[in-house]
Amino acid sequence: MRVLMIGDIVGSLGRTAIQTHLNRLKRAYKPDVTVANGENAAGGRGITREIVRSLLKQGVDCITLGNHAWDRREIFDFIDEEPRLVRPANYPEGTPGQGYTVIPVGKESLTVINLMGRTFMPPVECPFRTADALLANLSGKTHIVVDFHAETTSEKQAMGWYLDGRVSAVIGTHTHVQTADERILPGGTAYLSDVGMTGAYDGVLGMSRDLVLKKFLTQLPVRLEVEKTGGMQVNAVVIDLDRTNGKARKIRRVRIDDDQPLLDG
Amino acid sequence: MRVLMIGDIVGSLGRTAIQTHLNRLKRAYKPDVTVANGENAAGGRGITREIVRSLLKQGVDCITLGNHAWDRREIFDFIDEEPRLVRPANYPEGTPGQGYTVIPVGKESLTVINLMGRTFMPPVECPFRTADALLANLSGKTHIVVDFHAETTSEKQAMGWYLDGRVSAVIGTHTHVQTADERILPGGTAYLSDVGMTGAYDGVLGMSRDLVLKKFLTQLPVRLEVEKTGGMQVNAVVIDLDRTNGKARKIRRVRIDDDQPLLDG
Amino acid sequence: MRVLMIGDIVGSLGRTAIQTHLNRLKRAYKPDVTVANGENAAGGRGITREIVRSLLKQGVDCITLGNHAWDRREIFDFIDEEPRLVRPANYPEGTPGQGYTVIPVGKESLTVINLMGRTFMPPVECPFRTADALLANLSGKTHIVVDFHAETTSEKQAMGWYLDGRVSAVIGTHTHVQTADERILPGGTAYLSDVGMTGAYDGVLGMSRDLVLKKFLTQLPVRLEVEKTGGMQVNAVVIDLDRTNGKARKIRRVRIDDDQPLLDG
Amino acid sequence: MRVLMIGDIVGSLGRTAIQTHLNRLKRAYKPDVTVANGENAAGGRGITREIVRSLLKQGVDCITLGNHAWDRREIFDFIDEEPRLVRPANYPEGTPGQGYTVIPVGKESLTVINLMGRTFMPPVECPFRTADALLANLSGKTHIVVDFHAETTSEKQAMGWYLDGRVSAVIGTHTHVQTADERILPGGTAYLSDVGMTGAYDGVLGMSRDLVLKKFLTQLPVRLEVEKTGGMQVNAVVIDLDRTNGKARKIRRVRIDDDQPLLDG
Ligand SMILES: [Fe+2]
Ligand SMILES: [Fe+2]
Ligand SMILES: [Fe+2]
Ligand SMILES: [Fe+2]
Ligand SMILES: [Fe+2]
Ligand SMILES: [Fe+2]
Ligand SMILES: [Fe+2]
Ligand SMILES: [Fe+2]
Repeated sequence: MRVLMIGDIVGSLGRTAIQTHLNRLKRAYKPDVTVANGENAAGGRGITREIVRSLLKQGVDCITLGNHAWDRREIFDFIDEEPRLVRPANYPEGTPGQGYTVIPVGKESLTVINLMGRTFMPPVECPFRTADALLANLSGKTHIVVDFHAETTSEKQAMGWYLDGRVSAVIGTHTHVQTADERILPGGTAYLSDVGMTGAYDGVLGMSRDLVLKKFLTQLPVRLEVEKTGGMQVNAVVIDLDRTNGKARKIRRVRIDDDQPLLDG
Repeated sequence: MRVLMIGDIVGSLGRTAIQTHLNRLKRAYKPDVTVANGENAAGGRGITREIVRSLLKQGVDCITLGNHAWDRREIFDFIDEEPRLVRPANYPEGTPGQGYTVIPVGKESLTVINLMGRTFMPPVECPFRTADALLANLSGKTHIVVDFHAETTSEKQAMGWYLDGRVSAVIGTHTHVQTADERILPGGTAYLSDVGMTGAYDGVLGMSRDLVLKKFLTQLPVRLEVEKTGGMQVNAVVIDLDRTNGKARKIRRVRIDDDQPLLDG
Repeated sequence: MRVLMIGDIVGSLGRTAIQTHLNRLKRAYKPDVTVANGENAAGGRGITREIVRSLLKQGVDCITLGNHAWDRREIFDFIDEEPRLVRPANYPEGTPGQGYTVIPVGKESLTVINLMGRTFMPPVECPFRTADALLANLSGKTHIVVDFHAETTSEKQAMGWYLDGRVSAVIGTHTHVQTADERILPGGTAYLSDVGMTGAYDGVLGMSRDLVLKKFLTQLPVRLEVEKTGGMQVNAVVIDLDRTNGKARKIRRVRIDDDQPLLDG
Repeated sequence: MRVLMIGDIVGSLGRTAIQTHLNRLKRAYKPDVTVANGENAAGGRGITREIVRSLLKQGVDCITLGNHAWDRREIFDFIDEEPRLVRPANYPEGTPGQGYTVIPVGKESLTVINLMGRTFMPPVECPFRTADALLANLSGKTHIVVDFHAETTSEKQAMGWYLDGRVSAVIGTHTHVQTADERILPGGTAYLSDVGMTGAYDGVLGMSRDLVLKKFLTQLPVRLEVEKTGGMQVNAVVIDLDRTNGKARKIRRVRIDDDQPLLDG
């Protein structure tokens, strides 16, 4: 089973990047299932029902989220209705939405778990213990990928080792910069600290570089907006899972931008 | 001018990795000058005089530092004596050591600046304004690389854009994970959010994965130690600068580990 | 010279508390000059021109600010025009507004300095060095009070000791809870870690206790609003300064609320 | 039932302050039961078996802890053996020690719960939910005091309101500065944001003021030590609980230092 995971889609340029590149990516890599992180899809903060529908219609099979999931309040109106939408599982009990979902992939299925780190982030439930609890309930599942939405490389690598041999892949999101540390851990779990983002190529994490710079230089409150000019980028990862046991066989990073066009699509 | 920059050397395995791979790296890439971040060289925390000497002797031309610079107190005894050792320039006035150095490279020179971010880090002086002040004093210099030691991708990318066209390269350190976002910005500045680390391949950022996991799982104070078992990794970047004007012409990431051996050295 | 300092005025109940109690406080304590922190006066976030005018008209002689100074954007339109309005002096160079002001008090004057801490707050300039620089420029002044707007007790106490003997008083703001550690330090500087807030008595720091609790319980983004029901409180401090040399002679905390009515006004 | 709660005992001066003042305090206030926070009793960090024994022998009936509980490793050897020692209940499952204890007080008992905040502190379990769970198990108990060890006034006040009417008192610790906001909430719960510390009067939170200042001024790692010179202070609170239902009837702050000697003891 081949899984395509696309990093945090940021704002209008991010959605345009999906419109422009998703089909080409699929032709190039022929994934069986496509997962994308959508926490920043609506103007850099949150996601709307319309964007969810549009992404699913364009061929995304599952949308994961993160700390920005809640920035558009309308999500509380639809998060419980969309089985292909997943928010971090370690938000406290009673949080709307679901922390994992099972996506049919032909006769098989892929389980997608979303977890969130706690270092420099809101103090949600322990992601390691939440992972244990989820996996105990998913004992029949063999093909499981985890979107671990976290800030620090230490918490991410710790999660990779913690789940090695127990899930098919641990793929980080949230920093919006793809890391180059893809590997298959000894137990058969594919690992990448961060898959990177999808959106403006000339911003700062997809947001306006002028506004971000203004914030750093003045330390005043600055309302960030997405970068709307310049090129686009798509950051993704392709993971091949053993059909029988779900072990990762191969992990490849994908980066599309003005400097590195997708030629083979 | 070709510059080889090597990411944070962590502990004994990091130093062994330098002994094992530096000459091979040099044969493979033929750099004119080699810079390495040494803030974690002594047991994961700080650096000693002996390690400084050893690294310089082995062919490192300049050692940069970061927030861990001061963890071994003996640094206060020698930091003012070693012209090839640089600590973040934006520590407050009166801090021992120097924030940049000029390394002779044949008839030319490379200026190496070390700066530190402030997001989730100690509140040192503004790195952007410190960069402005340093560059005002370095107006004759054309070949300048900045080691920007920072936690967040936003502060790093903001610095890249801020210095684009004013320095040859802005290369991040501190997260210990190499990022895959190398590019040459429109003004001619090579950029990479993080060059990654040099040391244990099977730890967490070079430290013991058991101890880091213990820390995350218990939230108790855990004295971290370097990971001493398993393989090694070297993360580096090679930047080619235009001889005449110091503009970056090419930037390539280098990653050596058990999964990706250095074949061409 | 007797100085009355009133803690962070929060929202409409805070402004009502001033209307209700300021004159009575003045009758009770007969201050020569009144200073109030106004960073939360407009709906809990920032301050408007109208509120500034109203507070000054009601008998506040000087308004200090803090990290919330900038939350209402209109402040950028008037902060440079009002000499009795002060924002933290250690915002970076180029920040609108002023970091201290000199208030005429009969034939004498009181200098009011506003500084901001950096622990768990934005990384502005070093407040200790900024204090040094300001005091070097204020060498003729003997009556100086510092509103040190900071989160942690350690940074506040450190500032108290740092400025002991160099200013008349170091009075903390920002935590919205009055501390009971008033004292006169050996060098003659009055010190209080936090003067507390002015506004709702039954909220959380003046904000809606239901909304604050919702935030802690859900870890979701919650737009806080001021608490509008229940009683009011005023927290203040009265400091007596030696007429000749500005040394503090006495410091008394003042607390008015439903449980502790102001009887002597 | 009258409860005396003494704030964080810091280092040798803190222990000396107990030796000097505890008996006098008891004579003055005649408490039925005495609780003290001991997380900093050993050199400012952690506590030893010997200090535990000594404090209990001197008349402390229950010792609470906090984030510094674990700084002396020997605590892991004895924390499970001492029924009068309590660590924050919301450390994750499996943490040594207990989160509450029941102290016999004549024919009655006082239940002491220790909880820890999460804002600017380690991400332990949700203290609000942990409180709910503990109280569900303590349904027969009427006399319950909570030592809520937390950094921010917002989390502390939120806890006060959350537990109002469900426990006898919510008393904060950790900031080492006594607050002046004592009150009895509408449901009958005594509340104080922080009881303050016990130890050096001329340090910064009990630690060396020179070293703390050095840390703020240099931003370098500084190994803090307790302040050993100058006077002492004791900060405490006396709470009177209704014998029949455990409701708080009265709450008084106690502060003893060079400026405010205990006269009535
Ligand atoms: Fe994101
Ligand atoms: Fe995120
Ligand atoms: Fe490092
Ligand atoms: Fe570092
Ligand atoms: Fe405030
Ligand atoms: Fe504030
Ligand atoms: Fe403490
Ligand atoms: Fe503490």
